[in-house]
Amino acid sequence: METRFHGGNIYEAIREIGISHKDLLDFSANINPLGFPDSVREIIKKNIDSIIYYPDPKQRELRKAAASYYGVGEENVLPGNGSVELINLVLETLRPSKVIIPSPTFTEYALAAKNRGIELDLLDMTKNEFVWDNAFVESVIKKISSGALVIICNPNNPTGNLVKKEIIKTLMEETKRKGAFLLLDEAFIDFIGEHESLSKDVIKNPNFIVLRSLTKFFALPGLRIGFAIAGEELIDKIEKLKDPWNVNTFAAAVGKEVLKDEDYIKKTREYIFREKDFLWRNLKEFNFFKPFKPAANFILVKITGNFKASFLARELLKKGILIRTCSDFAFLDDTYFRVAVKDRRANEILIRALSEKVDK
Amino acid sequence: METRFHGGNIYEAIREIGISHKDLLDFSANINPLGFPDSVREIIKKNIDSIIYYPDPKQRELRKAAASYYGVGEENVLPGNGSVELINLVLETLRPSKVIIPSPTFTEYALAAKNRGIELDLLDMTKNEFVWDNAFVESVIKKISSGALVIICNPNNPTGNLVKKEIIKTLMEETKRKGAFLLLDEAFIDFIGEHESLSKDVIKNPNFIVLRSLTKFFALPGLRIGFAIAGEELIDKIEKLKDPWNVNTFAAAVGKEVLKDEDYIKKTREYIFREKDFLWRNLKEFNFFKPFKPAANFILVKITGNFKASFLARELLKKGILIRTCSDFAFLDDTYFRVAVKDRRANEILIRALSEKVDK
Repeated sequence: METRFHGGNIYEAIREIGISHKDLLDFSANINPLGFPDSVREIIKKNIDSIIYYPDPKQRELRKAAASYYGVGEENVLPGNGSVELINLVLETLRPSKVIIPSPTFTEYALAAKNRGIELDLLDMTKNEFVWDNAFVESVIKKISSGALVIICNPNNPTGNLVKKEIIKTLMEETKRKGAFLLLDEAFIDFIGEHESLSKDVIKNPNFIVLRSLTKFFALPGLRIGFAIAGEELIDKIEKLKDPWNVNTFAAAVGKEVLKDEDYIKKTREYIFREKDFLWRNLKEFNFFKPFKPAANFILVKITGNFKASFLARELLKKGILIRTCSDFAFLDDTYFRVAVKDRRANEILIRALSEKVDK
Repeated sequence: METRFHGGNIYEAIREIGISHKDLLDFSANINPLGFPDSVREIIKKNIDSIIYYPDPKQRELRKAAASYYGVGEENVLPGNGSVELINLVLETLRPSKVIIPSPTFTEYALAAKNRGIELDLLDMTKNEFVWDNAFVESVIKKISSGALVIICNPNNPTGNLVKKEIIKTLMEETKRKGAFLLLDEAFIDFIGEHESLSKDVIKNPNFIVLRSLTKFFALPGLRIGFAIAGEELIDKIEKLKDPWNVNTFAAAVGKEVLKDEDYIKKTREYIFREKDFLWRNLKEFNFFKPFKPAANFILVKITGNFKASFLARELLKKGILIRTCSDFAFLDDTYFRVAVKDRRANEILIRALSEKVDK
C-alpha cells in the first residue's frame, strides 16, 4: 500500500496518538467550520431505503441543481465521486502530452499524471511568493505547447492565493491558440463567490474544464460530490470513461438540496471572510511566522525561525491539534505549514497552543 | 448525454409511466429480495456525523473485513466505488492489447474497452446455449495472445450460467503461459457460496484479478462497494490510478459490518436456492418460454413464440412490473428477457401477469 499524504488524513494521526475523531482539533482539512447544513441529517435518514436502488446513471436532478447553481447548462455538468475522481478521468480523456502545474499546489494533479506516465512540468512559484506577476504569467505561456494541459487550482491550495480572472482568461486564449488544454480547479472558490468563478466562461470551448466540489464549502468530504464543467462534447467524452453509477445515493440526494441553501451559503461566506482575517492577523503577531494572506478558508505559514513545521506539528498533536505540514508539496519544505480557518473558539485554541511553543 | 441500458434503471421507467419507486415491481435489477441487512439503517444513522471527515484513503478496516470474508490478505484487496469503477481502473492499469469477452455478458466490459479504443473480441455463446463445452473452451484458448485480457463473469449475467472452477483454472494456466490476463467478475458468486470463488487462487499470480461486489448480494446498489482481489503488486498498480477517497463514508462503515453478518448470508443463500427453482419451474410451464437454468438470482428467458420481449416489457410496465429486455447484450435480440428472482409474492405476481399475456 502506498502512503499518500493529505490534509484531513486523521486516520494516521488517530493511530499515532490513540484519540478519537471528536477529540481531535483538525486544522489539516480545509472544511467549512460551520459544519454541513442542518438539512443533511434529515435528507440522509429519508434516503436510507433508497440505497436498494441503483443511483440514476444520468443524475438528472443533481445535474439540474448544479447547472442552476453554476449558471451553465445541464449538458455542461458531469457529477463525479468527488472532484478528485474527475482529475483522473480528465487525464485519461485528454491524454495530454505533458501537464504544466504552477506549484506548490494540490498534490493529486502531479501524482495522477505521474502514475499515468505523463510528463510533468512543475513551475516553481516560491521565488515570487506565489504571486502571478507578469513575469510568471509569461513563463507559463512560454511552456504551453500543443496537447499540453495546464492545471491551476484557484484559489490555490496550499498558498491561498487567488489568480485574477483576467490572467486566467489570457491563459485560456493561449491554450486555445496553441491547441493545449486548461483545467481550473475551483474547489475553494465558493468561499469567495461565483463572481470569481470561470465556470460560465469555459463551456464555449472544448479546451477548458472547471472542477467544482461540495467537499470543502458544504463540509461533506465523506459523501463524495464534485463536478466537471465544460463544453458538452468534452463532458460526453469524460462521461464515457467513467462508470454509470459513480455518484452514490446519499451524495446525489444531499447535493441537489444543499446547492439551493442560500442562507447557509451566505452565512458561510460572511463567517470565513471575518474569521480568515482574524486568524491571519493573529498568526502575523508571531515573530517567526510569515502567514500568506488567504483568499479562502486556509492559511499557509512560512516559519522564519530556527525550528521545523514537523516539530510544531508533533508538539501540537500532543494537545490534540492537527496541522498540515507541507514538505510533500513541490518546492515547499519543512519550514511551511498550513492551517484551516475554523470557528473562533478553535482558532483561539490554536493561537494559544502556538504561543506556548513559539515566541510571539 | 449518452444513454446506457441497464437493469435497475428504474429512472427511465418511472419517467415513462409516472409512478413512484415503491409502486414499481422491479425484476430488472438482480438485487437480493430480502433487502439489505437490518443493521444497515442503524450503521448509516450512526455515521452521519462522520461525513464531515474524509474517508480513510487506505480503508484499513474495510480491507480487513473483506480480506477475512474472501480468505485473502489485506494487501490483496482494493476497495472500489462499486466494482464497476474497478473495471475501468483495471483496463487503464493493464492497457490490454485486446479484450476477449465470452458473450452475452455484462455490457460494461465491452463498453469500457470500446470507449478506451481497445480492440474487442466478443465470443458468441448463443450457438452452444451459453455452455462452456470443450469446443468453446478450445475456441477461447485459441484467441488468447500476449497482452490480451480475458473477461469472464461468473456466474454470468444475463445467462445465469456458472463456469466450473476447473475450466477457469485451465484458462488461468493458458493466460499465464501466454503473458495474457484474466479478469473474473464474481459479482453474483455470493449467492452460491465461497467454494465456487477463485478469489484465493488468483492472488499468487500477477496475471489474474477477481472482482467482488456487495451490490447484489447485500442489496446495496446505492452505496457503491466492490473489491478487486489480486496479487499485491497488481493491487498497488491499480490503486495508483484511483483517487484516494473513492469509497464514501457510508459504504465503508456498512461494508465492514455486513460482511460479518453470517445469518443474513446463510438465509439469503437458502432463500435464493429455493426461490430460483420456483421461478424457473413456473417459467418453464409457458409454451413459448425457454428459461435457462439459473445458478444465481436471475433467469434469462428465450421467447420461442411469435412476439417480442419489448412488447412483453411494455405490457408488464402498464401493471408496474419492470423486466429487463436484452437486445443491447451482444448476440442477444428482442426474443430474450431477464428477470430477477424476487420474493415469493412478487414472483407469483410476475407469473400471473405473464399468464395473462402469454399462453401457458
